[in-house]
Formats: sequence, C-alpha cells, structure tokens
Amino acid sequence: MTRTPRLEIEYCTQCRWLLRAAWTAQELLTTFGLRLGEVALVPGTGGVFDVRLDGDLIWSRKESGHPEITELKRLVRDRIAPDMSLGHSEKR
Amino acid sequence: MTRTPRLEIEYCTQCRWLLRAAWTAQELLTTFGLRLGEVALVPGTGGVFDVRLDGDLIWSRKESGHPEITELKRLVRDRIAPDMSLGHSEKR
Repeated sequence: MTRTPRLEIEYCTQCRWLLRAAWTAQELLTTFGLRLGEVALVPGTGGVFDVRLDGDLIWSRKESGHPEITELKRLVRDRIAPDMSLGHSEKR
Repeated sequence: MTRTPRLEIEYCTQCRWLLRAAWTAQELLTTFGLRLGEVALVPGTGGVFDVRLDGDLIWSRKESGHPEITELKRLVRDRIAPDMSLGHSEKR
C-alpha cells in the first residue's frame, strides 16, 4: 500500500519531537503536493530524527543536527523534481 | 521500509485538507505513540479523506463524513491495543 516517492520522518518520542516532525511533513507536502506519494511519521526513541526518501537516508540529526527546512526541501527537490523552482528559499 | 501497524490518511489536496490530515495524524500519534508503527499522510484528489489501518479502510468521508477524532481513536484502539483505555474520550 506504500506510495512512492515515499518520504519518511522518524522522530524521537522521548524528545517530544512529534510536532517538529509533523511540521516538517506539512512543509514538504505543502511544497511538493502530489509530487510526493506519501510522507510517513514514524515514532522512534533515542534522539532519532532521520529523514529517508524511498529508503535512502537523506538527513540524520545525529550526523548533521536538525535540518534547515530549506536545505531539506532542496535535497528532496533534487531527487524527485529536479526542474522545480523552490522560489525565494532558493536564494539563501 | 513500512512499519506496522501502519495508519494511512489519504486527503484531498484540492480541498486543502492537509492541516486536517496532519492534525488527525498527531492526535493518533500522541495517543498511541510507539504502539503505532507509522502514520502516513497521502496527498490525493477528488474529495477523498480515507483512513486505512494496515490496508483496511476504517473510515471514508464519502461514506460517513469527516470522522470524530474520539470515534477514530476507538476504531484504532480496538484493532491495535484493545485493552488500552482512552480516558475521558471513552465516556462520551
């Protein structure tokens, strides 16, 4: 039943990062809409905040800290819609 | 990569139901936490607001209107955590 491109956000419940994860999900769905198959929120533990696109890890908090949303959008755009402009967030 | 139990919320982008879908997702994740494998937000069209649990349709707006969150929690609870109390929302 999974739809692709599938974006997955695994967040730490102990750290109370649900709202952060849900906010990230809606930012990506607002920007990419039907270009995304789905965005899955995955409850986890131990300080995890990992973002995966079709199974590939594209962001991990433990490596890089929390992602800047503009940076995350660029990473997703480059993989699923390389010709799409991200407007003003492109020009940071 | 999918985690079970998998809850899926397919919403109509044309109807601008992303925020409604995201709110529903966080209500379920706040209540069930790690008892849920994942909650997927699935952008759709044509007035869809369908909720599926491990592939089974448990709510469809076209049949029943938008779900009351307490009713939706009961449906999910009965399937994934039948012994769990839902507290005050149980007593409506």
